[in-house]
Amino acid sequence: MTSSFQKQHLLGIEDLSQGEITTLLDRADLHAEAERGSRDHGQPLKGLTQINMFFENSTRTQASFEIAGKRLGADVMNMAMQTSSVKKGETLIDTALTLNAMHPDLLVVRHPHSGAVKLLADKVNCAVLNAGDGRHEHPTQALLDALTIRRAKGRLHRLNIAICGDIAHSRVARSNILLLGKMENRIRLIGPPTLMPSGVTDWGVEVYDDMAEGLAGCDVVMMLRLQKERMDGAFIPSEREYYHRFGLDAEKLKVAKDDAIIMHPGPMNRGVEIDGLLADDINRSVIQEQVEMGVAVRMAAMELLAENLRERRAAA
Amino acid sequence: MTSSFQKQHLLGIEDLSQGEITTLLDRADLHAEAERGSRDHGQPLKGLTQINMFFENSTRTQASFEIAGKRLGADVMNMAMQTSSVKKGETLIDTALTLNAMHPDLLVVRHPHSGAVKLLADKVNCAVLNAGDGRHEHPTQALLDALTIRRAKGRLHRLNIAICGDIAHSRVARSNILLLGKMENRIRLIGPPTLMPSGVTDWGVEVYDDMAEGLAGCDVVMMLRLQKERMDGAFIPSEREYYHRFGLDAEKLKVAKDDAIIMHPGPMNRGVEIDGLLADDINRSVIQEQVEMGVAVRMAAMELLAENLRERRAAA
Amino acid sequence: MTSSFQKQHLLGIEDLSQGEITTLLDRADLHAEAERGSRDHGQPLKGLTQINMFFENSTRTQASFEIAGKRLGADVMNMAMQTSSVKKGETLIDTALTLNAMHPDLLVVRHPHSGAVKLLADKVNCAVLNAGDGRHEHPTQALLDALTIRRAKGRLHRLNIAICGDIAHSRVARSNILLLGKMENRIRLIGPPTLMPSGVTDWGVEVYDDMAEGLAGCDVVMMLRLQKERMDGAFIPSEREYYHRFGLDAEKLKVAKDDAIIMHPGPMNRGVEIDGLLADDINRSVIQEQVEMGVAVRMAAMELLAENLRERRAAA
Repeated sequence: MTSSFQKQHLLGIEDLSQGEITTLLDRADLHAEAERGSRDHGQPLKGLTQINMFFENSTRTQASFEIAGKRLGADVMNMAMQTSSVKKGETLIDTALTLNAMHPDLLVVRHPHSGAVKLLADKVNCAVLNAGDGRHEHPTQALLDALTIRRAKGRLHRLNIAICGDIAHSRVARSNILLLGKMENRIRLIGPPTLMPSGVTDWGVEVYDDMAEGLAGCDVVMMLRLQKERMDGAFIPSEREYYHRFGLDAEKLKVAKDDAIIMHPGPMNRGVEIDGLLADDINRSVIQEQVEMGVAVRMAAMELLAENLRERRAAA
Repeated sequence: MTSSFQKQHLLGIEDLSQGEITTLLDRADLHAEAERGSRDHGQPLKGLTQINMFFENSTRTQASFEIAGKRLGADVMNMAMQTSSVKKGETLIDTALTLNAMHPDLLVVRHPHSGAVKLLADKVNCAVLNAGDGRHEHPTQALLDALTIRRAKGRLHRLNIAICGDIAHSRVARSNILLLGKMENRIRLIGPPTLMPSGVTDWGVEVYDDMAEGLAGCDVVMMLRLQKERMDGAFIPSEREYYHRFGLDAEKLKVAKDDAIIMHPGPMNRGVEIDGLLADDINRSVIQEQVEMGVAVRMAAMELLAENLRERRAAA
Repeated sequence: MTSSFQKQHLLGIEDLSQGEITTLLDRADLHAEAERGSRDHGQPLKGLTQINMFFENSTRTQASFEIAGKRLGADVMNMAMQTSSVKKGETLIDTALTLNAMHPDLLVVRHPHSGAVKLLADKVNCAVLNAGDGRHEHPTQALLDALTIRRAKGRLHRLNIAICGDIAHSRVARSNILLLGKMENRIRLIGPPTLMPSGVTDWGVEVYDDMAEGLAGCDVVMMLRLQKERMDGAFIPSEREYYHRFGLDAEKLKVAKDDAIIMHPGPMNRGVEIDGLLADDINRSVIQEQVEMGVAVRMAAMELLAENLRERRAAA
């Protein structure tokens, strides 16, 4: 079967067309329904080896990829890259070549440096999935956010979407802006100027430093995590002050549409980025559904890449 | 098939009836025999996802649950909770909700705080097994001890059972006292008063600070590990003095019954809690059999909980 | 089927005959071809439990054993021994007895102390594979090197083989010297006298401290990793000086045979032991093939040991 997703790797949203995004989301929808019902996915990754290489800890994302792979029948391995040969002075390219010689099929890679995942992907024959590289991209996060929005709103275009908080340090924001822009939505970024990336005015988005203005009439409110571990000295307000000005609560949300949904990629700092009660409000918050769609999106991405891998091998 | 074990979770011995304990042990006995013979358990966990969440290290208990799950056909994942989102400020309840959204089937949880496993269990749809929470309970340890005793003595009631050592810091002691009490045994606790919990006089047990008195006529001698890592400053004697007064050796054992068995939950401090030669005496020590029964008991517990889970889902 | 490899364990090359080595390599060759083609190995380890116990980190070797086991159908578990009961004062023998009581089938063990793997093997019923013990042996590394040489040169005897660098701290060197000697090759060791083991003159090898002399006419040049972490104070030259005298580059290689192959067990220190361009030269370097053969050799070793295990159990 030839799908309309013909790539070897999933490195970023930047490389994807509208059609490819739609193919990924349609496939993910099928897996999401199977997860809620029969739980039978037909073992499309049977006989394949998936290796999770996390050069940066992420229990949540790694677990999501591991569950996705195992439920589709893959043999899944987690390599503890933080205690690995990298510490013994091996270069990333040598690590890639070494792994490649073991004939893996799917490599899921997270790395603290932007571009490192592509560097690795260029050296291997298998399929590589970017699970987050530096401040660059986190494509499966943007795809799961898109799927969650599409299921809640019935469409993924012509929506008013606010992304709020620490934009500058966030690969989640960057991948979401790319994806939601490609699908022709109106994007607003809200946050203190110190947490906006330089050059943001060229991105084709609207920029606000006031929640009341930015949230007015929104369909979707996407809060970001304060990435304290990435800030190295940038001036930010105290957490209390930050919550007062940029934390989402019921009062600030009033200016958004009545049926606006609330999103957060997790893990949440309750009482810093978002009010705890609002995060738990099942009429507004889709935060748990984001996690659920994460597994479905990763299933779809690995399944489509595996189909391409098998075609490439059969043709070789 | 309806079993006489109808619980959603296995959180503690406190919740179990005599009948439920017997159901668990009978099922475990079948798995123990299969392990020694055909090694065919029929894959009752096939298609299910078991997640081991150890917020506190325990290589031994985690391995036992992992082997049990894999031999029964489960997909088993180990989550490294000590390097997880918890470190990034996420609450335990958010961790529970996040995991729950990934649709796991069996969660095996160890946590340093008493009650934390129940807190987590209240938030999820799947089955939760307590693999040890603070000083509270360690139900599979008590069940494996019970199975070992029942196999060695031919019964699990009207036995004289001595539990010796650091009672105050031990969830193993607590779960064992509950289980052995429910099954109508005579329980004696032996140890220095500083290592006895406050309120122990209300527990319906006999308390001794002298091994000769406490061990007289015993059928079972259960030694505990000195939990040095939990003592935070409590006065205890030196290890040498401790061994002299409370360490089990052939001499002290003489007052017990001739066929008394010796138990220890491991890992052992040889020469502190117990004489090394006695620990290795295959006529008296059942310490290796305890480990073996650990796998069988965990198989039984996960299998029974999975049966209940499938019934609940089919009824939904 | 009775093979000509009848051992319970694979502890070292020292215990193996020429015939056993050939049996292992022939079997590995079959797996290497299957890996490059059908990827169908027939699941010979189905239903068996393989436990990787690494008391010393080695992401690369552990991954190789894990991939090998999973591709052959084993249930594979990784035990984090560095955070284990060993830290709580448990002896290695108690760890062995505990694991043995859980009925594993294949134990893959790496340990920082020479002889520790044999100590453990003596206490268990299953098959034990030495994945490196102190400065003693690393048999699967020597076997994968032998397979790589045999495939490149068409034979494994009467070759001139140079092993260069830090011989003193290297179990890789030791296992290779034993294997290549048994197969009747001419072995030369090259390195600074401070990195030669005492007593090397009794080993039946030639010793050089000059690359030009040692490499003259060689068929195979095997570079070793500088084991900085094992040197504890031994005098070595600076890395720059070391590279100048003992690092392999195109110039030094000129005296070897025109078709000499270059090997390195990895991870490489480029620019210290070996010139980066030479390491990547696909006409001379077989470094990636060594990694590939590593998986095949581990498959063969585990498969043959599992056959013996099943025979022993059937006979019991």
